[in-house]
Amino acid sequence: MRELDDIIISKAIIERYNRDLIDYLDVDVSIAGAGPVGLVAAYYLANAGKKVSVFERRISIGGGMWAGGMTFNHIVVQEEAKSILDEIGIKVEPYKEGYYTADAVHATAGLAYQATKEGAKIFNGITVEDVYIKDERVSGFVINWSTTGMTGLLIDPLTIKAKYCVDATGHDAFIVNKLVKKSGIKIDTETGGLMGERGMWASVAEPMIVENTREVYDGLWVG
Amino acid sequence: MRELDDIIISKAIIERYNRDLIDYLDVDVSIAGAGPVGLVAAYYLANAGKKVSVFERRISIGGGMWAGGMTFNHIVVQEEAKSILDEIGIKVEPYKEGYYTADAVHATAGLAYQATKEGAKIFNGITVEDVYIKDERVSGFVINWSTTGMTGLLIDPLTIKAKYCVDATGHDAFIVNKLVKKSGIKIDTETGGLMGERGMWASVAEPMIVENTREVYDGLWVG
Amino acid sequence: MRELDDIIISKAIIERYNRDLIDYLDVDVSIAGAGPVGLVAAYYLANAGKKVSVFERRISIGGGMWAGGMTFNHIVVQEEAKSILDEIGIKVEPYKEGYYTADAVHATAGLAYQATKEGAKIFNGITVEDVYIKDERVSGFVINWSTTGMTGLLIDPLTIKAKYCVDATGHDAFIVNKLVKKSGIKIDTETGGLMGERGMWASVAEPMIVENTREVYDGLWVG
Amino acid sequence: MRELDDIIISKAIIERYNRDLIDYLDVDVSIAGAGPVGLVAAYYLANAGKKVSVFERRISIGGGMWAGGMTFNHIVVQEEAKSILDEIGIKVEPYKEGYYTADAVHATAGLAYQATKEGAKIFNGITVEDVYIKDERVSGFVINWSTTGMTGLLIDPLTIKAKYCVDATGHDAFIVNKLVKKSGIKIDTETGGLMGERGMWASVAEPMIVENTREVYDGLWVG
Amino acid sequence: MRELDDIIISKAIIERYNRDLIDYLDVDVSIAGAGPVGLVAAYYLANAGKKVSVFERRISIGGGMWAGGMTFNHIVVQEEAKSILDEIGIKVEPYKEGYYTADAVHATAGLAYQATKEGAKIFNGITVEDVYIKDERVSGFVINWSTTGMTGLLIDPLTIKAKYCVDATGHDAFIVNKLVKKSGIKIDTETGGLMGERGMWASVAEPMIVENTREVYDGLWVG
Amino acid sequence: MRELDDIIISKAIIERYNRDLIDYLDVDVSIAGAGPVGLVAAYYLANAGKKVSVFERRISIGGGMWAGGMTFNHIVVQEEAKSILDEIGIKVEPYKEGYYTADAVHATAGLAYQATKEGAKIFNGITVEDVYIKDERVSGFVINWSTTGMTGLLIDPLTIKAKYCVDATGHDAFIVNKLVKKSGIKIDTETGGLMGERGMWASVAEPMIVENTREVYDGLWVG
Amino acid sequence: MRELDDIIISKAIIERYNRDLIDYLDVDVSIAGAGPVGLVAAYYLANAGKKVSVFERRISIGGGMWAGGMTFNHIVVQEEAKSILDEIGIKVEPYKEGYYTADAVHATAGLAYQATKEGAKIFNGITVEDVYIKDERVSGFVINWSTTGMTGLLIDPLTIKAKYCVDATGHDAFIVNKLVKKSGIKIDTETGGLMGERGMWASVAEPMIVENTREVYDGLWVG
Amino acid sequence: MRELDDIIISKAIIERYNRDLIDYLDVDVSIAGAGPVGLVAAYYLANAGKKVSVFERRISIGGGMWAGGMTFNHIVVQEEAKSILDEIGIKVEPYKEGYYTADAVHATAGLAYQATKEGAKIFNGITVEDVYIKDERVSGFVINWSTTGMTGLLIDPLTIKAKYCVDATGHDAFIVNKLVKKSGIKIDTETGGLMGERGMWASVAEPMIVENTREVYDGLWVG
Repeated sequence: MRELDDIIISKAIIERYNRDLIDYLDVDVSIAGAGPVGLVAAYYLANAGKKVSVFERRISIGGGMWAGGMTFNHIVVQEEAKSILDEIGIKVEPYKEGYYTADAVHATAGLAYQATKEGAKIFNGITVEDVYIKDERVSGFVINWSTTGMTGLLIDPLTIKAKYCVDATGHDAFIVNKLVKKSGIKIDTETGGLMGERGMWASVAEPMIVENTREVYDGLWVG
Repeated sequence: MRELDDIIISKAIIERYNRDLIDYLDVDVSIAGAGPVGLVAAYYLANAGKKVSVFERRISIGGGMWAGGMTFNHIVVQEEAKSILDEIGIKVEPYKEGYYTADAVHATAGLAYQATKEGAKIFNGITVEDVYIKDERVSGFVINWSTTGMTGLLIDPLTIKAKYCVDATGHDAFIVNKLVKKSGIKIDTETGGLMGERGMWASVAEPMIVENTREVYDGLWVG
Repeated sequence: MRELDDIIISKAIIERYNRDLIDYLDVDVSIAGAGPVGLVAAYYLANAGKKVSVFERRISIGGGMWAGGMTFNHIVVQEEAKSILDEIGIKVEPYKEGYYTADAVHATAGLAYQATKEGAKIFNGITVEDVYIKDERVSGFVINWSTTGMTGLLIDPLTIKAKYCVDATGHDAFIVNKLVKKSGIKIDTETGGLMGERGMWASVAEPMIVENTREVYDGLWVG
Repeated sequence: MRELDDIIISKAIIERYNRDLIDYLDVDVSIAGAGPVGLVAAYYLANAGKKVSVFERRISIGGGMWAGGMTFNHIVVQEEAKSILDEIGIKVEPYKEGYYTADAVHATAGLAYQATKEGAKIFNGITVEDVYIKDERVSGFVINWSTTGMTGLLIDPLTIKAKYCVDATGHDAFIVNKLVKKSGIKIDTETGGLMGERGMWASVAEPMIVENTREVYDGLWVG
Repeated sequence: MRELDDIIISKAIIERYNRDLIDYLDVDVSIAGAGPVGLVAAYYLANAGKKVSVFERRISIGGGMWAGGMTFNHIVVQEEAKSILDEIGIKVEPYKEGYYTADAVHATAGLAYQATKEGAKIFNGITVEDVYIKDERVSGFVINWSTTGMTGLLIDPLTIKAKYCVDATGHDAFIVNKLVKKSGIKIDTETGGLMGERGMWASVAEPMIVENTREVYDGLWVG
Repeated sequence: MRELDDIIISKAIIERYNRDLIDYLDVDVSIAGAGPVGLVAAYYLANAGKKVSVFERRISIGGGMWAGGMTFNHIVVQEEAKSILDEIGIKVEPYKEGYYTADAVHATAGLAYQATKEGAKIFNGITVEDVYIKDERVSGFVINWSTTGMTGLLIDPLTIKAKYCVDATGHDAFIVNKLVKKSGIKIDTETGGLMGERGMWASVAEPMIVENTREVYDGLWVG
Repeated sequence: MRELDDIIISKAIIERYNRDLIDYLDVDVSIAGAGPVGLVAAYYLANAGKKVSVFERRISIGGGMWAGGMTFNHIVVQEEAKSILDEIGIKVEPYKEGYYTADAVHATAGLAYQATKEGAKIFNGITVEDVYIKDERVSGFVINWSTTGMTGLLIDPLTIKAKYCVDATGHDAFIVNKLVKKSGIKIDTETGGLMGERGMWASVAEPMIVENTREVYDGLWVG
Repeated sequence: MRELDDIIISKAIIERYNRDLIDYLDVDVSIAGAGPVGLVAAYYLANAGKKVSVFERRISIGGGMWAGGMTFNHIVVQEEAKSILDEIGIKVEPYKEGYYTADAVHATAGLAYQATKEGAKIFNGITVEDVYIKDERVSGFVINWSTTGMTGLLIDPLTIKAKYCVDATGHDAFIVNKLVKKSGIKIDTETGGLMGERGMWASVAEPMIVENTREVYDGLWVG
């Protein structure tokens, strides 16, 4: 270990990160939030050949999914969700007819592992502060280091471009709310309402996520 | 999703967690800390057929490994570490002779996924407060919810038993320090010193972890 | 004391708690809040043969009752309340005609002791986050560890079922407010108003609590 | 309830508290801390006819005992402790040979109820800041509102007198440590050491408390 | 100093405070706030033979008056105010025609000294939480220790009675706002508006205070 | 009041403060702390014709004296102290033989009023950060706005000169400790010890203050 | 350095500051905020012979401009802005046609240096709390130490006079919002809206600042 | 301004920063701290043709120099320092013989402007966490985002290389202290002592900085 040259390491890390950041300034789909919804969406989209970036405000990904219910770290899924977990390679245990359980840590790690293996690029520690609107269309995200937000410093953000943007910030529906405030645009309240509602991830049926994802504004999709 | 019965879900989660917690009150090896050192140790030990529990004080696992260096989320590894990553199924990219880089998010998730797939059980959100000493031997851990520590409430802990205990709390060397304070025992300062030193995980050579793991006190191993 | 086996103790505690938690997933009456209102209600309901659970967000029960007025730890009661205290076994001292005082610590502890002696099960350190609505009826509570709320972590909750739910969170009227916000339902404003008003527990007339308890929504009673 | 005169209530509360505070400026035994040790000591001493005051820095009494182990609210006791709980009227359930469990909330409330019923006077919300030394003997406590300590305001304390003082502040051994710092006096390290060690109240054998209580300095006893 | 008996001192302090607190449960005029407005009002009312109590939430009295403008501790007064300061015995220095300056510390201390010398009783460290309404009239204050508010503990208040109540909480207009919220009563907006406006005490013309004091609601006067 | 010209007021305040600050850059005696010790010292020294400045870190003066004991706002004095209070014009009430009580608010305000009336200049909101040593003698104070210390900003201080410096910071013995740390000088431990000890101001015998004031280092006196 | 007399230094600093503060109580133009907008405005106005004061709430000037975008400390400017930077002496590097970059630290320091060189006087550490309205015209600012705001102390402000006032507080539009709230006056919403929008200083075209500056209310200009 | 392409701007900023960061991984001299000492050092070294990087933990540079003494924003310099300020182009005003004053804001901005104009590269928002030792010589710095330190997140650092390292962190002597702790090396205590001492920047004689800078350990110089 001592033989590794620290400056080469620093250089390698900076160059690789910079290459990726420049490369992902313009993507097919950009997803805000690397919780279970964002990860499943990233997995399927990358698997379908799309260039996908995910911005996660925390350093770790997975959101509240690691904790199961009340930090009893298991999740419960139904028949349809089971087939997704099987496809991804997550071990599932039958509980009662139609109910299966999985270890929450195993499932979260597996989801993130497979999404990145398929080529989705996750930028952690970065917060989506706003949507980038061009020609009256959501055309990207305005991003910043999460740490600057946590410290209260006023640091200007940067902008990235995406053909489609997905709000997978979950319970807070942060991006959609921002858009609503900003533009006064009416979004489909049914979907919006669902997002505001604090879900029970411990029992989420992942296949529905994809079905429920819909375009709430020109260029912005909600997961 | 609406058809799922919430009470059955609650019951399933509580029962499964309780079954695991009771089951893992007495294990072969218990590891404090689910950072990269703890995860690699858990992977190899579980793979070798040991009954392994890992207690991680945070809700998410992986420690600082998600962030690479300065949140530039890549890690750098050498030839030997590369073979481990290959075995685990983590994608690696050559940089310079003898140097490889990997996506930090991908590598962290992959490590946790494979360790749990091998059967290691991770209890997240639980802090190891102390070692459990019986017959002048480290015979387990004294554990508690991490949240109680964070809120300053004084809640009594519980005790678990393990044939071998591993301190993989990393930079802080929390457990070893606790033991030293408590018993005044002298531990191998070379290893202890290494642990206190804030490492550079971005460039860690994982094979050395195993080699460097040694017994510092009867029953306690340091990763 | 040294002879006690720590692992047996851990096992006993986990098993007993788990047994109770599973057992109380489905009850006759569930009460949110173990302040004086919740405890009196729990006492009478358990005494009447009902299966009763109480969820208290703090570790200790009794709410502000321990402190009397301005931490001058005495309470003042009238004739009718005196008979309840007599029945429960709390020492009361005459002050002026129609006024009696009792030691606040003695009265609070006595109330909790007798309620639990009658069989009411108190789960402390657990917050009722929401009501559980099924078939347009309040059918239980959505619960979580209080500590997770205190630490700002986003941990998903679990659900419990109850034939009747009682909001005894007191000054804040937390549950009723939640329901009102959620459903836009109109509740009896007289009762609702009373709850919002910061009471003077030092002089509470307990018999009235029971009289004042009424159904504000299908399945939800306010204490 | 509306008929109660608020000013009479205020007057009653102030007068009763003041009467007790003046009355307890000079007692047989004063105990710092109303956790389980302090409550058991208060129960036996009051039962034996002593004039006993207890100062508890929190508003609620009982300390960490309400929470059992890891907020799994049960406690485990042995044969000898069982007989105390039986005497006090606390319901106990057999677990394994020589092990009994009790509901932690029920046990804590019962202990406080019986101690106060026997006549021990608990002043809650008051912190023992220091010992009062007169003629080279611990002759009382220096007390203050706990809230002032919590707010960082510098408010001068008051002094109370006691023939014997008991430090039942538990894990922190606050009073003994204060005395050691102040006077450089050597106390019996065995006992002192025990106090510094974070105990496991979930399994405490109460009879031992009394046996273990010893005089560490002239006038100061440690529970 | 060593000869003073600490217990006699404690007793003296408790008894004297208790005597005053009981004595002032029913007064002619009660004033919320011991800033300059409250002190001038207290001075004149006590001087006129009224029984006056003042509740000040801070431990020290005087509010922002000690600091002058921007902590440049001088105040500026006009001709009329000068005569009040002369009467009270505060040294004043001419600046320009019609303008006088005084040392802010000297003026604040002098005002408090003379008000208390005239017999006004100031209870510091006590917050007026609410007005006490009886027979649709403001008939007193609901008071509590300020420290409990600062610590977030929920401690019930006590009630005191007064023929007239004065809101001299100054910039916040705390009491009047409370009353408006509670009862929906319309108060004289001109006066109310003046109170909400952040004044410049450095140049306050005290004589006007008295003139500006008016009854905004039955029993409540605003300073 | 409306006729007052705001700019003239600003100018008057700035000019007067600036005149005083410049004027008091070089004094006979400078006192750190405007608690009771500092105020009594300032009163006597100013009365004796000395040019005296007092720096008080808080905005209000008086320290903990306003609060009496446990916020029961009365103080207890002996025969000798009584004569000082009489001289200063503070009302005193006999309690028992040799014991007198006074209202704490009245006494604190009176002390500050008389000290400033005698000509002592109090600069409030200013912290003494250090002593100014010249020619191996304490020759003044290094001062700064207290608010900068409270905000954690690093702002450089200014220096003032004094023939004699008095440390009246009381319980903390801030200045003396600073000097000890800095220079390793041994001070009279008896006095130093007294200062470190948290006093009971409610019963302070002021005449002793003066007697106890002694020179602990060349130029620095301790009150 | 040791030869410098500390008291002369203190005196020099106090006198110079006081001279400036008195001198700038009445100016041609006063600007709230020393971010890039305020500095450019100050530069041009001072250059045009106006007497200009700038109040900056922070100790350092420049606002978020030091940090570039996401703390990548470079700024991007267009052709027109380039000519300003050239005039001021800031080094600029061409990037693409029509785009130039500059080092953010170099540009910020250069801007502040040249503005002060032209004679603009910057008072840092001072917050504009409000506008000063006289004869229905914005006629100055109400100012205070920023530190007092940060500490929550209630210290009265002072007032300064200016023929024209400029709100250059930037993203928050603090002053204009204050004015709107206070007077209910309608301001030009287009400009107002622009101010509320979080700008991207990294790419700001400074020449436009001056063009965009307009009078929103009698005497108040927005930058 | 609207015509600027946001993605080009993002790209330009990222590329330029990345270019500089990679370029400055290996320099002649690296300075920790962009306060006055660091800036003067950077100015002279860059002027002498050295490749110089400065790491400043705050977003703004200049340290406490902006504030003068007690936020009275002027600085005082002697004859020698005056010649430096003249050379740099900072306006200076004579005060007394041998004493000159300068506007603190003007002087700080000027210093930073000229240092960067000479080619020194300042990386702001980056903290030097440690020294990088290679072959028993200080060979660079271990750096990290300052914001991560402020948020308590554990993010691994990166390493940069420098022929010479300068500790200009000022009052804290952060780097030297770190080195001393780590290696137990004895450094020249005279210099070390000087650094620990909180200086008075308002009167600093800059020429002495350079003279006082000396090598305290192989490769590390102290400013």
